[in-house]
Amino acid sequence: MKYLLHEIRHNPMLWLLLFVPVVFLAEAFKPGAYTMLFVLSVLAIVPLAALLSHATESVAAKTGDAVGGLLNATLGNLTELVIALTALRAGQYMLVKASIAGAIVTNILFMLGASFLLGGLKHHTQEFNKAGARFQAGLLFLATVALLVPSATTKANSPAAAAFAQELSLGLAVLLLVAYGLGMVFSLKTHRELFTSVESGEAGEAPWPVGVALATLAGVTVLVALVSEVFVESVQEAAKTFGMTPAFVGFIIVALVGGAAEMASAFSGARKNRLDLSVGIALGSASQIALFVAPVLVLLSYVIGPSPMSLDFWPGAVVMMLIATLTAALVTTSGRSAWFVGVLTLMVYLTFAMSLYLLPPGLR
Amino acid sequence: MKYLLHEIRHNPMLWLLLFVPVVFLAEAFKPGAYTMLFVLSVLAIVPLAALLSHATESVAAKTGDAVGGLLNATLGNLTELVIALTALRAGQYMLVKASIAGAIVTNILFMLGASFLLGGLKHHTQEFNKAGARFQAGLLFLATVALLVPSATTKANSPAAAAFAQELSLGLAVLLLVAYGLGMVFSLKTHRELFTSVESGEAGEAPWPVGVALATLAGVTVLVALVSEVFVESVQEAAKTFGMTPAFVGFIIVALVGGAAEMASAFSGARKNRLDLSVGIALGSASQIALFVAPVLVLLSYVIGPSPMSLDFWPGAVVMMLIATLTAALVTTSGRSAWFVGVLTLMVYLTFAMSLYLLPPGLR
Amino acid sequence: MKYLLHEIRHNPMLWLLLFVPVVFLAEAFKPGAYTMLFVLSVLAIVPLAALLSHATESVAAKTGDAVGGLLNATLGNLTELVIALTALRAGQYMLVKASIAGAIVTNILFMLGASFLLGGLKHHTQEFNKAGARFQAGLLFLATVALLVPSATTKANSPAAAAFAQELSLGLAVLLLVAYGLGMVFSLKTHRELFTSVESGEAGEAPWPVGVALATLAGVTVLVALVSEVFVESVQEAAKTFGMTPAFVGFIIVALVGGAAEMASAFSGARKNRLDLSVGIALGSASQIALFVAPVLVLLSYVIGPSPMSLDFWPGAVVMMLIATLTAALVTTSGRSAWFVGVLTLMVYLTFAMSLYLLPPGLR
Repeated sequence: MKYLLHEIRHNPMLWLLLFVPVVFLAEAFKPGAYTMLFVLSVLAIVPLAALLSHATESVAAKTGDAVGGLLNATLGNLTELVIALTALRAGQYMLVKASIAGAIVTNILFMLGASFLLGGLKHHTQEFNKAGARFQAGLLFLATVALLVPSATTKANSPAAAAFAQELSLGLAVLLLVAYGLGMVFSLKTHRELFTSVESGEAGEAPWPVGVALATLAGVTVLVALVSEVFVESVQEAAKTFGMTPAFVGFIIVALVGGAAEMASAFSGARKNRLDLSVGIALGSASQIALFVAPVLVLLSYVIGPSPMSLDFWPGAVVMMLIATLTAALVTTSGRSAWFVGVLTLMVYLTFAMSLYLLPPGLR
Repeated sequence: MKYLLHEIRHNPMLWLLLFVPVVFLAEAFKPGAYTMLFVLSVLAIVPLAALLSHATESVAAKTGDAVGGLLNATLGNLTELVIALTALRAGQYMLVKASIAGAIVTNILFMLGASFLLGGLKHHTQEFNKAGARFQAGLLFLATVALLVPSATTKANSPAAAAFAQELSLGLAVLLLVAYGLGMVFSLKTHRELFTSVESGEAGEAPWPVGVALATLAGVTVLVALVSEVFVESVQEAAKTFGMTPAFVGFIIVALVGGAAEMASAFSGARKNRLDLSVGIALGSASQIALFVAPVLVLLSYVIGPSPMSLDFWPGAVVMMLIATLTAALVTTSGRSAWFVGVLTLMVYLTFAMSLYLLPPGLR
Repeated sequence: MKYLLHEIRHNPMLWLLLFVPVVFLAEAFKPGAYTMLFVLSVLAIVPLAALLSHATESVAAKTGDAVGGLLNATLGNLTELVIALTALRAGQYMLVKASIAGAIVTNILFMLGASFLLGGLKHHTQEFNKAGARFQAGLLFLATVALLVPSATTKANSPAAAAFAQELSLGLAVLLLVAYGLGMVFSLKTHRELFTSVESGEAGEAPWPVGVALATLAGVTVLVALVSEVFVESVQEAAKTFGMTPAFVGFIIVALVGGAAEMASAFSGARKNRLDLSVGIALGSASQIALFVAPVLVLLSYVIGPSPMSLDFWPGAVVMMLIATLTAALVTTSGRSAWFVGVLTLMVYLTFAMSLYLLPPGLR
């Protein structure tokens, strides 16, 4: 608690923590004021994300960037998991799929691109561990192929095609989970030494003790999850007020706010010239959603959903995931970065965001 | 003969050679017992493949891994060529195309992936000659583009489209053969030094004299071809018994058994830390099928087929070949390998195999 | 003038300059003799391209290869811009788009491939600056994604889809121009040092003084533009005489002749082992057309065209641009080249050219 109060005193952004109780009060007394709830929940997530960032860095300082990045991605994606589970229970499979695809694309293109740009504006060129990036890019490539196959092998719209897609999705979900598990064995156990960081970090602020950091990580993650629920309930209605299409909301807005916590960590790492942390969070988070969250949701849909969910995505979403994965492979291949690499990556993201923003609902 | 007997005494797997005459007897006396013939022919191919492997290694020990790999790929693909020629004469163009596409995909993903996995389970990390892998990946990329173009430029189903596809296929076949020939000049003559092996091989068993090895190579290849014919005749009927779809049989089973000989060599090379040999066999064999076997079949279809055959493939097959080629480029780009690279590559293959296994026949 | 006369005396190819006035005379007195005008204009463009090449090299000798390459690409693409503007004013949007796509594909595959081949036939292996090639490949990748998105997100043929494509194209045009501008800042200002050349050039001929070189550049470019107009007017009719399809003319012939000036420079650089110059011209020219010429044409279509032009390309053209960009990324990734790399790249180009040559008009 002492560390937390010290942090709050020194970081004015944390004063926004005030909005956390305000959101819950507003939710209780004005449950229909969607636009207000939307704005309040975004304002409340920002400081929570900042706290999460500091706690994660404290743990990362003790464990090395690779493990810290993994930890961060795991906890950061709780938000996405909670959002998707809520939508799954309600049978809103289109929203689940849009938020999965959007989270993958946003983590790769926006989080990685902005990290390169923010880091590059401060440092002339930056280096990062190629092996780690290549490993995550490999996992993402596999996941993209797995999501591509159902739509590439068949385009018919018959009951037989639907049954095929469902059976195939179940098999692919198991395959992806096995690959994810083996990937953990590889990166954390048998070939751990490949994933040590390039030594380039500046001395950061004094880290918290591990106990405090872990407790903060857990508590703040729960708060993020609770606020996120308010956010999800209000976002669709608020979007209409702002004139956004549902595709844009599911793909871009949910993913940006859902990933705010990890983004704060990734951007802060990039500014401190610890690009391994940024790349680890961005690509690690994307591959965790693709190889862990998505298959778990498919399996859980047999238990808690009204009907089984498939991995059969809208073709446009598959193309975007494929391009995002290719981009990740291309920009990380040299293990070096400068600001323009960030610009290019962000531009690809803007291309997608723009087309989703303009896309008339009927054309999707 | 002395060497052969010595080998048979020391390698229990070669006792399966007994099944070679058994297959021919069974074929003569029970030509309709497809399931039995299928099982027997597979059992007979395994020891022949093992012999072929030892003979090839003996030659490779004398000539360097690159030439040994090329030699192996040339002789190993006789099986595929014989299978395809039999089907071509019968006018079964769908089977010819499926076995071509399947052989390319299986050689790249299964043979390369399993080599990486088997080698990686024994050796922590392995190195191989990047230049050789890049050369083969380049050839495969060209072949994939050539197979993609007919289906990308037109989708109409008219007589004009068919005539266009046929004319184009003839031109592309010539183009691919020219590229293959120039590639031989490049890798065996003008830039031979780029393809020398990374020195990492363990001392193998005492190699056979070149004469014995070459004679064994030739004789065993003929036996493999003869047994393969029994296999092809029986596989479709046997598949029905086992509940497999025709797509799965053509793409996966024929390719796996047809490539058994080369796989034995590739896997043995990987275990002995001679990954250059494995990569050379896997990618070399795939590119030989794409740039030599496939065009030759197109040209021969004008002579021995009932009608000319085009290079117009089922879109799903083109996508799989494209992904396989991309995978080859991605996993070989660093010239280093560990067991998880093999897992990822095999997972991509499993993704394809699973979807072909589940694919209802009508959807293809 | 003294330098020019000296050059003409020593370079017999420049005697073809005689055809420049002949073209204008023929155009004035025989405006309907399309086949003759076509042949004459091609003959006149060749020596102008050679002059342009020498002038550019003179400037490049003073400024370094990267800047020289950029300068060359800028002036060389005036031809393409003039052609496209003429077609735009006439509302021939299909021709504009075909010439844009064709120029991108031709610059990447033909110019780069032929440079590698010509350079490789003289030098065993050649090295070039990887950073420059990667930078251009990144720009091209972004442009390809931007051109892919309109056709990937929607396939409907309704007024809503057309309006969406138009709005999106306008946004993408602005995005591409911003990326192009930032890319100039990056390569010419903040990270200029990354783009210095690998030192491998042979001593060339004595360069002209910068003033003479710049004046020649400007004057000859104007002449190229004027002759190109005659060429464009005559090429469609002449093509019919030679039996070429409109797709082939727009994509291949216009691009080859329009890029003749840059090709002369690129090839001459490759022969002199200054492959940085060749790669810079080929990829720089392609990315300039994609990120500068194409968006400018979209914006200008609101001012001078009969109706706004979109970036919605024929799917086959998008596939070809995508494959060309992938090829550029693959062949430049190692920073080394040999003749067979050129062969492979040219083969991909031949594949496209062949299918466009054979494509029946109705199937496009």
